[in-house]
Amino acid sequence: MEVVQVLRMNGGVGETSYANNSSVQLKVICMTKPITEEAITKLYCSNFPTSLAIADLGCSSGPNTMFVVSELIKVVDKIRQKQGRQSPEYHVLLNDLPGNDFNTIFRSLPSFQAKLKKILGDGSGPCFFTGVPGSFYGRLFTSNSLHFVHSSYSLMWLSQVPEGLENNKGNIYMSSSSPPNVIKAYYEQFKQDFSLFLKCRSEELVTGGRMVLTILGRRSDDPTSKECCYIWELLAMALNDMVSEGLIEEEKLDSFNIPQYTPSPVEVKNEVMKEGSFAVDRLEVSEVNWNAYSNGEFNQLDAFKDGGYNVAKCMRAVAEPLLVTHFGDVIIDEVFERYREIVADRMSKEKTEFVNVIVSLQKY
Amino acid sequence: MEVVQVLRMNGGVGETSYANNSSVQLKVICMTKPITEEAITKLYCSNFPTSLAIADLGCSSGPNTMFVVSELIKVVDKIRQKQGRQSPEYHVLLNDLPGNDFNTIFRSLPSFQAKLKKILGDGSGPCFFTGVPGSFYGRLFTSNSLHFVHSSYSLMWLSQVPEGLENNKGNIYMSSSSPPNVIKAYYEQFKQDFSLFLKCRSEELVTGGRMVLTILGRRSDDPTSKECCYIWELLAMALNDMVSEGLIEEEKLDSFNIPQYTPSPVEVKNEVMKEGSFAVDRLEVSEVNWNAYSNGEFNQLDAFKDGGYNVAKCMRAVAEPLLVTHFGDVIIDEVFERYREIVADRMSKEKTEFVNVIVSLQKY
Repeated sequence: MEVVQVLRMNGGVGETSYANNSSVQLKVICMTKPITEEAITKLYCSNFPTSLAIADLGCSSGPNTMFVVSELIKVVDKIRQKQGRQSPEYHVLLNDLPGNDFNTIFRSLPSFQAKLKKILGDGSGPCFFTGVPGSFYGRLFTSNSLHFVHSSYSLMWLSQVPEGLENNKGNIYMSSSSPPNVIKAYYEQFKQDFSLFLKCRSEELVTGGRMVLTILGRRSDDPTSKECCYIWELLAMALNDMVSEGLIEEEKLDSFNIPQYTPSPVEVKNEVMKEGSFAVDRLEVSEVNWNAYSNGEFNQLDAFKDGGYNVAKCMRAVAEPLLVTHFGDVIIDEVFERYREIVADRMSKEKTEFVNVIVSLQKY
Repeated sequence: MEVVQVLRMNGGVGETSYANNSSVQLKVICMTKPITEEAITKLYCSNFPTSLAIADLGCSSGPNTMFVVSELIKVVDKIRQKQGRQSPEYHVLLNDLPGNDFNTIFRSLPSFQAKLKKILGDGSGPCFFTGVPGSFYGRLFTSNSLHFVHSSYSLMWLSQVPEGLENNKGNIYMSSSSPPNVIKAYYEQFKQDFSLFLKCRSEELVTGGRMVLTILGRRSDDPTSKECCYIWELLAMALNDMVSEGLIEEEKLDSFNIPQYTPSPVEVKNEVMKEGSFAVDRLEVSEVNWNAYSNGEFNQLDAFKDGGYNVAKCMRAVAEPLLVTHFGDVIIDEVFERYREIVADRMSKEKTEFVNVIVSLQKY
């Protein structure tokens, strides 16, 4: 499976689209806003550049895509107004894999730009939007051309399914029942990918340029910790049920593994240190409920059911193209119906949260 | 009708797609290659920049999109190899209106990039591809960021249908039966649009930067000359036939006008002079047969029929979204079936050619 060709969020604006099922991701972006704002403020105030190139890596397609960027621009505009400076030109670079639905982003641009212009007012500089298709585990931009890089909930995706996972039977991700070689293969792939990511960005960012990366991760040192593996384990349960009923071939399931790694803050920091191009300005961890509409407390019975529905739809928007490529599209509705039930049941009995690892970096 | 929202070539890769029906446009690109090559050679050899930003404006979606760019890169690469220089980084900026099918371009990129790398060989620098959605009758790129601009068969499209065409009854474009105010309105719109285009590009190009623009135009001083108006006149005939049969409302046809202006070389030159940012390096005119597969001679009967089919399909790929927005999609198949017959008949009786106005410019 070629991850570059296969991995993408569900396109369009329909019921199962990522655009309509990415509330958790939006919540995370909002949670990390103080860190992002601090970073862009430091960047802008260090030398007030007349042109500001901001890249969002793994921008996907939907309301979140534009939300990030417009928030960043608003911060800069506020500062330059306060200080009576001329506005910089903004260059917004939206990156995702070539399979991402860029058409939907681009078609929403004219109305978005008109709205943004209205919010910012007359004195604000022009905003140029470009789409940059390609894997961020390779060079994407010309040398020394970026000032600021943002990426949220993208860097846990690996460049490929690690090699040598043949004995990860019954699992689709790391789990407590995975053999040690599987855990090692996943971790090695993460290290290789993340350090390549850092190297590429260090070539593209100007000196003093900044990055804020939010990665789906874990607090624990144990890579098979429930906090990061549970969401996939429940999907594996749904798939295993269908194997036992003869709806999916066992070897089909055994050969399927999610190209993802959910790192701990220490693992992230280690790679940054080893690569050597960036200083760590901040490194933080936070949690967000699987159900974006939860208030963070245990909910009433009705809400639980909706929660299962929301979470299953969110995971479907994220993982459907991966699953369809491997299993075909006939089983998809059934898989996610079962998943919804399993997730709803678990959410009613325990606290279910994603862990966010946020790192704010500055290029030396 | 908002041209920015409505004008686009037919997307995808299907039977009626622009990708599959743009052979004339490809032929024109090939015909103008010597001029384009001369311009990029002069540009590169003037100071051998280490980074080369090349924009294709109105890139559409299909084989032509990548063809232009790869030819330009090959020229530069040949020179730098000959001279033993280090390759520049290439930054390719593909622009079209937001409704253009960028997804299809982007999905073909990984294989295209691999192929290009193979052709260019090991020493060649990286090529970064970005999509830039928006109207070229406005700023698209950051200041002083472009080295080379190419645009083929795009600048005859106006930013809007000129105002005050209410009395252009029975026509869908300028014609010898159009009242003088209609001709004037079209010409004024062209002058306004083209000079705005030049102004925007002059802000985006570096000093010494170059542009090669190929515009569907005419040799004659008469803007209603058959050489430029005939292709639309025949479409108007098909539509008028359907009006007389009650298939299209008369007022629907009367209120439809194509947002296009096919300028003469003198008109192009005048605007360049008036705007004042560019020197004219070359200004040329050439002809291309409506039927891309023609060898330029009068054909045998069989080929005529294919010609009508090819030309109607090409014009459908170009004009369908415009027509559908105004007339609805029910009539489309019928319109182009009638158009095909009319075109085939005319092609069998006369020499039918498009006129290309090509201008090569350098920014002062």
